[in-house]
Amino acid sequence: MNFCSQCAAPVVLRTPPGDDRPRHVCDACGTIHYQNPKIVAGCVSEHQGRVLLCRRAIEPRSGLWTLPAGFMENGETMQEAAARETLEEANARVEVDSLFSCLDIPRINQVYVMFRGRLVGGSFSPGAESLDTRLFDEAEVPWDEIAFPAISHTLELWFRDRRNGEFGTHTAVIHRRATP
Amino acid sequence: MNFCSQCAAPVVLRTPPGDDRPRHVCDACGTIHYQNPKIVAGCVSEHQGRVLLCRRAIEPRSGLWTLPAGFMENGETMQEAAARETLEEANARVEVDSLFSCLDIPRINQVYVMFRGRLVGGSFSPGAESLDTRLFDEAEVPWDEIAFPAISHTLELWFRDRRNGEFGTHTAVIHRRATP
Repeated sequence: MNFCSQCAAPVVLRTPPGDDRPRHVCDACGTIHYQNPKIVAGCVSEHQGRVLLCRRAIEPRSGLWTLPAGFMENGETMQEAAARETLEEANARVEVDSLFSCLDIPRINQVYVMFRGRLVGGSFSPGAESLDTRLFDEAEVPWDEIAFPAISHTLELWFRDRRNGEFGTHTAVIHRRATP
Repeated sequence: MNFCSQCAAPVVLRTPPGDDRPRHVCDACGTIHYQNPKIVAGCVSEHQGRVLLCRRAIEPRSGLWTLPAGFMENGETMQEAAARETLEEANARVEVDSLFSCLDIPRINQVYVMFRGRLVGGSFSPGAESLDTRLFDEAEVPWDEIAFPAISHTLELWFRDRRNGEFGTHTAVIHRRATP
């Protein structure tokens, strides 16, 4: 951030009075520009015992597999965001169920909020940001080709909970970077 | 938003190609300025069976009571944010426990993420943003003087779960405005 989005004057990075961390401050109009973590909302959508994954057509991590998920928009709920992302990335209508994982990724200022879901009708196909969409059982999941650690973690928890016969709500902090 | 924070050119509100909603777009440098919901993190801190509330010293809703909570910062986890807010607003150290409520407030583009917690040592006092800090049992809570609907809802759920002997993780959408 270089300039004030209110008045176009240059901003400076400085700790405002009464604050304890540097902010982008505009000395011309007095606006303090706060920056905060973003929510990524998505869905573990089940159909006939298998889970819907999308192969990414866009960077980062193009070509790798992920659960449908993306940045939550202003004016929507987390469940609405999860359903919208599933529709956009996999052309799939989903009935969103309970909150499943809520994961901090402080390194990149994101919080993943993943819900359980159920495909309505069972149809799906690649959306504009996907190369492929498929249903996977646990043994079929391409574990070495999952795009993001938060997605691997969510899938591991989901299959574990299903084995145990009870789905919980899970929190965790993800420190691992996407590899390779 | 009037100007591009990257290059200071005026921004226009327009739907970019491939997008489905208006964004603040800079035609000079091509930056698209996305705006997303913010997370408010906080804590229902228990001590000897009662819950810690703060009386707000700042607007909005100055003079009314709330749970310690505030905007999550970049670089921290939700639990860290909840503990920091409790320290800032009530000078109280808290051991943060499980996720308790995760509440959408789409009208104001916020998501409340409230944790259960336990006061460490049991000491507390008003921080800079609080007029007063007190422990309340259910019957003592000033229900008509709670600052925000998300806080009332969280407190109602907490006391209900405690009566039932089991704390869950709750999601809800808050449509109600703060009144009066």
